[in-house]
Amino acid sequence: MKKKVALGIDIGGTNTALGLVDSSGRFVYEETFATCAHESFALFRSRLSEKIHALCERFAGDYVLTGIGAAAPTGNYYRGTIESPSNFKWGNVEFVSLMQEHYDLPIVITNDANAAALGEMRYGEARSMHNFMVVTLGTGVGSGIVVNGDLVYGHDGLAGELGHTIVEPQGRQCACGRRGCLEAYASARGICRTVFELLSMHTDDSEFRYISFNALSAEMIYQFALRGDHLALAAFEYTGRILGRALADAAAYFSPQAIIIFGGLAQAGNFLLDPVRRHFDENLLNVYKGKVQILPSQKNKGNLAVLGASVLVQKELEKMGKLAAQ
Amino acid sequence: MKKKVALGIDIGGTNTALGLVDSSGRFVYEETFATCAHESFALFRSRLSEKIHALCERFAGDYVLTGIGAAAPTGNYYRGTIESPSNFKWGNVEFVSLMQEHYDLPIVITNDANAAALGEMRYGEARSMHNFMVVTLGTGVGSGIVVNGDLVYGHDGLAGELGHTIVEPQGRQCACGRRGCLEAYASARGICRTVFELLSMHTDDSEFRYISFNALSAEMIYQFALRGDHLALAAFEYTGRILGRALADAAAYFSPQAIIIFGGLAQAGNFLLDPVRRHFDENLLNVYKGKVQILPSQKNKGNLAVLGASVLVQKELEKMGKLAAQ
Repeated sequence: MKKKVALGIDIGGTNTALGLVDSSGRFVYEETFATCAHESFALFRSRLSEKIHALCERFAGDYVLTGIGAAAPTGNYYRGTIESPSNFKWGNVEFVSLMQEHYDLPIVITNDANAAALGEMRYGEARSMHNFMVVTLGTGVGSGIVVNGDLVYGHDGLAGELGHTIVEPQGRQCACGRRGCLEAYASARGICRTVFELLSMHTDDSEFRYISFNALSAEMIYQFALRGDHLALAAFEYTGRILGRALADAAAYFSPQAIIIFGGLAQAGNFLLDPVRRHFDENLLNVYKGKVQILPSQKNKGNLAVLGASVLVQKELEKMGKLAAQ
Repeated sequence: MKKKVALGIDIGGTNTALGLVDSSGRFVYEETFATCAHESFALFRSRLSEKIHALCERFAGDYVLTGIGAAAPTGNYYRGTIESPSNFKWGNVEFVSLMQEHYDLPIVITNDANAAALGEMRYGEARSMHNFMVVTLGTGVGSGIVVNGDLVYGHDGLAGELGHTIVEPQGRQCACGRRGCLEAYASARGICRTVFELLSMHTDDSEFRYISFNALSAEMIYQFALRGDHLALAAFEYTGRILGRALADAAAYFSPQAIIIFGGLAQAGNFLLDPVRRHFDENLLNVYKGKVQILPSQKNKGNLAVLGASVLVQKELEKMGKLAAQ
């Protein structure tokens, strides 16, 4: 008898990862190709379809494909759309209905933070948890929130915009057009802005004084911190203070069992996690103290979103099964 | 055949309301008595039991009691407890297990904001909604949050502490021991504090200059606003600015269809709602604009929490029915 696999797709601004994942979370196959987000979606779709077609031919002997799950920035579960993500030249894309022209299978999409949460819930740190959050720290700041064992999509599929809660009224300009959003502080770009704020405020000597804004990256800040640069350490402390306080607010809304930190900036490990945990505890309402863990994700990026996208397919099939049984 | 009714109880700091509610939300009977929260819980329980006993005798001919639902500050659904609410001398109370010594019926408890949300969902403004929030503005600021049609309890039953999200870092002292919580601004006491801040900042003449802090009430501020007092109007504007921004953050987490405003301070109507709506819109992330309604509750306090407590019983019975069917 053929084994069932779901196809998980993680569509990123730079690369797209594909994986055939069985029902125990094992990767039967995985592959990565360039998204070329500056080209049209039509071109992307034809490349993606070729890949899927090749996969289906190659694995048809041993496996049966149960569905396709995708994770993409602004991916909307309810509408099946990708909605003009920044860094993409795609505009609004009817992802699910366009893909369904080719495949008579359940096809579902959600955003990357939600997929990460599904991946953590079924195969990662959040196994056995019913109330938790995944916070993604990368180019942007996102969150996938699970309540009563289900993702929080909200009324229109756009819930979980932790990165656009306001942490500093009248604070830094944000790409969204407003001011003081968490994303302007706790993203990869945000910590670079913090370094420049610290350079303006203090007189300490630092390697950063030789680097232009556009030449600076979060990775460099991590490298400088490893070498003991005071400003780099202060930048992580500053970021941890803002993020820790924001997560204490999130805990007041959701009372989660854990908050799992994931994404590029999270690679800085304890440089970031130590101040996040300290300021989280300081700002946490008494009734939650000692009850909410701040955990680093144990998964790497591509893997987790693809896994999560495959879980989205499994959940969709379970839902269809339940409806059919009614 | 006897008609089914649930007993809803709203335990407030001053009064406790009881209601026998049928499955269509009709009150068969209602009554209010003094809580006497400064006495022991044992005394309260014996008075409550007498009332319930009398009700059961009186209505036994025509009705059958399906369960008891209670709403109380800090009421914890998971643990069945009331957990040392401020203004009560009760400490931690095992409400459900103590009541079950007398009644062989499903007995459930939740906090008052959650009960209000259940009441709105089944009989009020939120009929047909699956994602919305009820915000209670009274002595404290609370919230009952519904996601995917279910209340958000969180991991330990203590979710929804909107009043203790931090809106002004290093801002006003809050009763919880921290600083800058929404409750220090948007509660009945919070708006009194705002009047005193405005008196300190401005030189306008105002009736408020003849009133001591402890003599001032939110009701007086409303009465002064009706008479056109500039400081009273400015106090509502200030409150609306803080609350509107906080609700914009809440919308970023939950993407709700509506936020329903309820409780004592909400009685000020458009004095409060106009600035709340304006600042909510100004602070709302673009993707949510025009999608989230800010609505005043159409229910009065006692009624809504009792109704909601009766809904809690209905939901419990539905859940038990589903479990039994599995």
